[in-house]
Amino acid sequence: MFIDRLIESIQEKNNPTVVGLDPKIEYVPAFIKERAFKEYGKNLKGASEAIIAFNKMLIDSIYDEVPAVKPQLAYYEMYGIEGLIAFDETCKYAKSKGLIVIADGKRNDIGTTAEAYSKSFLGETEIDDGVTQKAFDVDALTVSPYLGIDGIKPFIQDCTNFDKGIFILVKTSNKSSGQLQDLVTEQCKSIYEVMAGYVHEWGKPLTGKYGYSSVGAVVGATYPNQAKLLRSIMKNAYILVPGYGAQGGTARDCANSFNRDGLGAIVNASRSVMCAYKSETWKNEYTEEKFAEAARAEVLRMKEDLNAALGR
Amino acid sequence: MFIDRLIESIQEKNNPTVVGLDPKIEYVPAFIKERAFKEYGKNLKGASEAIIAFNKMLIDSIYDEVPAVKPQLAYYEMYGIEGLIAFDETCKYAKSKGLIVIADGKRNDIGTTAEAYSKSFLGETEIDDGVTQKAFDVDALTVSPYLGIDGIKPFIQDCTNFDKGIFILVKTSNKSSGQLQDLVTEQCKSIYEVMAGYVHEWGKPLTGKYGYSSVGAVVGATYPNQAKLLRSIMKNAYILVPGYGAQGGTARDCANSFNRDGLGAIVNASRSVMCAYKSETWKNEYTEEKFAEAARAEVLRMKEDLNAALGR
Repeated sequence: MFIDRLIESIQEKNNPTVVGLDPKIEYVPAFIKERAFKEYGKNLKGASEAIIAFNKMLIDSIYDEVPAVKPQLAYYEMYGIEGLIAFDETCKYAKSKGLIVIADGKRNDIGTTAEAYSKSFLGETEIDDGVTQKAFDVDALTVSPYLGIDGIKPFIQDCTNFDKGIFILVKTSNKSSGQLQDLVTEQCKSIYEVMAGYVHEWGKPLTGKYGYSSVGAVVGATYPNQAKLLRSIMKNAYILVPGYGAQGGTARDCANSFNRDGLGAIVNASRSVMCAYKSETWKNEYTEEKFAEAARAEVLRMKEDLNAALGR
Repeated sequence: MFIDRLIESIQEKNNPTVVGLDPKIEYVPAFIKERAFKEYGKNLKGASEAIIAFNKMLIDSIYDEVPAVKPQLAYYEMYGIEGLIAFDETCKYAKSKGLIVIADGKRNDIGTTAEAYSKSFLGETEIDDGVTQKAFDVDALTVSPYLGIDGIKPFIQDCTNFDKGIFILVKTSNKSSGQLQDLVTEQCKSIYEVMAGYVHEWGKPLTGKYGYSSVGAVVGATYPNQAKLLRSIMKNAYILVPGYGAQGGTARDCANSFNRDGLGAIVNASRSVMCAYKSETWKNEYTEEKFAEAARAEVLRMKEDLNAALGR
């Protein structure tokens, strides 16, 4: 099962971290960009080739220390077809290095269309009677729940059929997440609590050998109090925690999304790792050329930070 | 402004319809598939080439009678990179025929990432200082509101800068849409009412010369009572209405999303047009080879049906 593989990889590397691969072009060091622009031109293709090179060097530098990476689809779609080729190549390269790949796409639609999205990333596409092919192939996908269960069911079906996982948005890390998610219903429950109840219920049939489900949730590190409550509602959900570092969440804040067994959450860091070479912490130690080593140093620092907050 | 262009095209063609281009491979007539599979193989490329041919023939047959088309991204992503090439080619072909293109992607994310999605479809992508390029180029995009205003703002910004539009999910057409959207808050308002209030407010700065905003909403034809209420809350929003035909919504149901000026909504039909040649209504009149003519006949029938319900 997806969730068992994720947990085993987290335990093996003793690191509950996922590195977000959100490669804005301004994150990419000049020497990589210049090389790509020279070969392919200052265009979507050149930018995408620069991103592929950047991602691969990052992956090479961190794959033995982190269990998973999370490419954010928006940062590939913004380079069009070429960008999606970069996404696909990044996913394949990460998998070849033994990393679990969580595509962050926040896909959502009504039943039959959700099915198409699910086939795109988790399942298989039928070409002609009996002939199927994989479109993109990742281990898990983030999904957005505004449409209710019939927009989620097709993803859950493919999680079962193809050993995949999903993470459903519950309480997001952004400032205005409360505008909808914090509304309180007549039953005195906030929307994020209601959603958490659904995630708990929907995930039950996909519970693996460690007691966690392949149907997980997204809860931002920037809302630690809500995280504590949500942790108790969704006992078996693995929680993907964005918002650490650049967005202001601390390791202590993240700890609220874990269970007492030290499991139950995986914390995302994107910019702080990708741009470690530009950060106050590392810029004096690493030049731009050594960006991948800076990323590794930040991964190790974060790992220690999280494990300390978790008391291990 | 986007919304003025949309209204003028609706008026010119006297048809408040958008044709959904959701080309599942089983919708594509055998003679098109066989030709494509023979040339490109029974694979993602072959399927995508079949879809391009199918879409172009459909567009050729209906472009003078409908103002807009709405390709659903899921049905292109499911064919991977090749599928996205088909999406791009479909959009470009539709635009070359004077059609307005609404990409149905229900994109959503936190601020900076929403910005990347917005650049992908509505704005422009920066390659290197000053050099920009368009990734995909459509006229409008559907977006999902679970994350609140900071996930919507970047799209609105690009609507302003690039003359584009968005349609925000408010009350979707699927059966389980109520699971989240119908929850009633302490203030005795349903989530879809609250969302409608936001759409009304967010859209004000983008109001065009006919009194409508480039920030529209999605309200399913399958919920006609809710549509009436939502119409009154979002006075200036153009409402994109899915659910007509195959999903059970009637022209009368759709009429609830229009204002007294006969404007204010555009009704989507996908399967009923694409698969008209298979339908009870048309299958005796049109063979599979004449699928595009069947689609045109269905477009004309639907136009009459809607205009009758609107009393014109």
